[in-house]
Amino acid sequence: MKKRTLLMIPGPVEFEPKVLEALGEPTTSHLAPDFIEAFGQSLQDMRRVFESSSGQPLVLAGSGTLAMDCAGANLIDPGDKALVIETGYFSDRFATILERYGGQVTRLSASIGDRPSLEQIKSMLETGSFKLMTITQVDTSTGVIADVKQIAALGRQFGILVVVDGVCSVAGEKLHMDTWGVDLTLTASQKAIGVPPGLALLMIGPRAFEAFQKRSMPVQNYYADWTNWLPIMQAYEARKPGYFGTPPVNLIYALQVSLGQILSEGMEHRVARHLAISQACKAGIHALGLTQLPLRPEYAAHTLTAPRYPAGVKGADFLEKVLQSGVTLAGGLLPGIRNEYFRIGHMGAVTLSDVLATISAIENALEGCGYKFTRNAGVEAAGKKVS
Amino acid sequence: MKKRTLLMIPGPVEFEPKVLEALGEPTTSHLAPDFIEAFGQSLQDMRRVFESSSGQPLVLAGSGTLAMDCAGANLIDPGDKALVIETGYFSDRFATILERYGGQVTRLSASIGDRPSLEQIKSMLETGSFKLMTITQVDTSTGVIADVKQIAALGRQFGILVVVDGVCSVAGEKLHMDTWGVDLTLTASQKAIGVPPGLALLMIGPRAFEAFQKRSMPVQNYYADWTNWLPIMQAYEARKPGYFGTPPVNLIYALQVSLGQILSEGMEHRVARHLAISQACKAGIHALGLTQLPLRPEYAAHTLTAPRYPAGVKGADFLEKVLQSGVTLAGGLLPGIRNEYFRIGHMGAVTLSDVLATISAIENALEGCGYKFTRNAGVEAAGKKVS
Repeated sequence: MKKRTLLMIPGPVEFEPKVLEALGEPTTSHLAPDFIEAFGQSLQDMRRVFESSSGQPLVLAGSGTLAMDCAGANLIDPGDKALVIETGYFSDRFATILERYGGQVTRLSASIGDRPSLEQIKSMLETGSFKLMTITQVDTSTGVIADVKQIAALGRQFGILVVVDGVCSVAGEKLHMDTWGVDLTLTASQKAIGVPPGLALLMIGPRAFEAFQKRSMPVQNYYADWTNWLPIMQAYEARKPGYFGTPPVNLIYALQVSLGQILSEGMEHRVARHLAISQACKAGIHALGLTQLPLRPEYAAHTLTAPRYPAGVKGADFLEKVLQSGVTLAGGLLPGIRNEYFRIGHMGAVTLSDVLATISAIENALEGCGYKFTRNAGVEAAGKKVS
Repeated sequence: MKKRTLLMIPGPVEFEPKVLEALGEPTTSHLAPDFIEAFGQSLQDMRRVFESSSGQPLVLAGSGTLAMDCAGANLIDPGDKALVIETGYFSDRFATILERYGGQVTRLSASIGDRPSLEQIKSMLETGSFKLMTITQVDTSTGVIADVKQIAALGRQFGILVVVDGVCSVAGEKLHMDTWGVDLTLTASQKAIGVPPGLALLMIGPRAFEAFQKRSMPVQNYYADWTNWLPIMQAYEARKPGYFGTPPVNLIYALQVSLGQILSEGMEHRVARHLAISQACKAGIHALGLTQLPLRPEYAAHTLTAPRYPAGVKGADFLEKVLQSGVTLAGGLLPGIRNEYFRIGHMGAVTLSDVLATISAIENALEGCGYKFTRNAGVEAAGKKVS
């Protein structure tokens, strides 16, 4: 079981006590009126969190990878052309998924920490008749954020579907699904949505739904097939019972609580809080003389920070020392450079105090690893940034 | 949220307080030593619960339908012949899933409440070169139990894979996977396994694994593909970290607690308890003059009871009246006769007291519906059966 250590990895994150309380409540029937209300309200609230009044929300028991799989399996007909904007490990996974369903995938990649430019994306879109394009809003593996607003505008210009992997961004980063012209956004529960892992969430916009309806082949994945689930989602949202598979009752009660908290904070405030906390974290890291994986400040996500280890500091040793100060951080994830950087998650219920404690733990660990820096410089810089 | 009403549906069921406590604990990292131990221990314990020392356990975030999908997607190559022994709605779903992955499915069905005989199954196996056969040990929709031991023996005789849908049976009904020669068993968390919904569990025997390795085509379902998950399961069982998708951390802590409880009760005792409680429930139902969907006593499962409404009793009215006595039961699920019967789940942490309270609530409701019977006859018969 967890001790009072602070969980600062890019998911799962620290969760609100009321969310955990709901999760541990005695389970009701999936057809009980209370549960129908909880599920219905969650689906309604998802529209506001994803900022999509025209979308169809979908919640499934599964991980974020299921959410990606669900998008790929339902939107790709064999032979469909897809453009994947690559910014890390998870963009690459999306390409693999689209290929699994017969997609002809073009990967537009950039070097580590960089991202394909709008001009490159535009030129690529001019070359081929793509059915869809995927954007990883924040690639959890690199901490690189994509400019979804601008890329989605290109998608609209070329009339292709815009699919956003928002696993590490929804409810933390700015995302106006409807006004930006995004056709599908997917995410998972354990990041900025603020619910323990086990839920895959999708918001299917009207053009994505239309493309699904026009498929030539049945969906090659039974569990993820929207045909099975959409009538169920529509039933619950209309506060009627529906059954296809047993919904993850406790996780959905927890989701209702968390979405309620998100909406009472308000999307604008929430995004601003994530921005401020991210700036504090990055200021602290910078003041310690550490660089980040994202090559420019504007490429860096606000839901996590991905600093490179300074010369002479070994990852395993450093992370162990951070843990001795009571903070859990994540190592690198990108194959090839796994041991060159680490990751600090700061999303959901995260506070400035959490970030200060984290930077302090990082200072302790760096000192323990023999790295030379001005003690307290990180904590001071982080503190200044917000106050 | 749930009140003190008794949840007596065939899943989710009433869960042990310690399981719910574990579920609501603060979430750890999926790579934390405590979690690695919890996941590793759960996988080990699954071997004992499924009675398969040679199998490979697999746990995924998802519903029972995902567990079925996972079996179908990994074992069926397009064109493979499969025999589905049909005993209800969920056997039929299995056929649909196998067809989705290109299986050429033969459905061997029986009339409602009946089940295909061993002779029929044998004749069918003599006609064609099937790669696999699916058996729904307990079809939750009808309460019919299949004779897995005898059917699996036929499977061995004909050298085909024997796949058991144990969603409504594992940890409640007798199932000796290795000694009976079953090649794959799947289940979900929210039934006799005793954990809130959200986990799909599989035990993959050596012959099933070999068939998977000999596939001619990649698995047409990315999330369910064993290639992605088996190395992760092997890592956790060896108490090493592994990553493919974020595991449902809290549900797995709850699983560890529940499997521990199951094994301290002991599989033999647990199956005997389910049998005794089932007999009590069925004696109570019989004493009230109600018949059951399964046509013969030996066709009736021990994890649920599926009584038919007596003439003149309307389902919705009856179930509402049962609820007024504080007990939640389930309606029918089989298309066509949905309103002709109801279902009482009795598995996992269920006690004789729960069954007595349930029969009493049923008596109240039947009286309220104007049905004539000897008051207390059901409760008395149920009580006698166990004492």
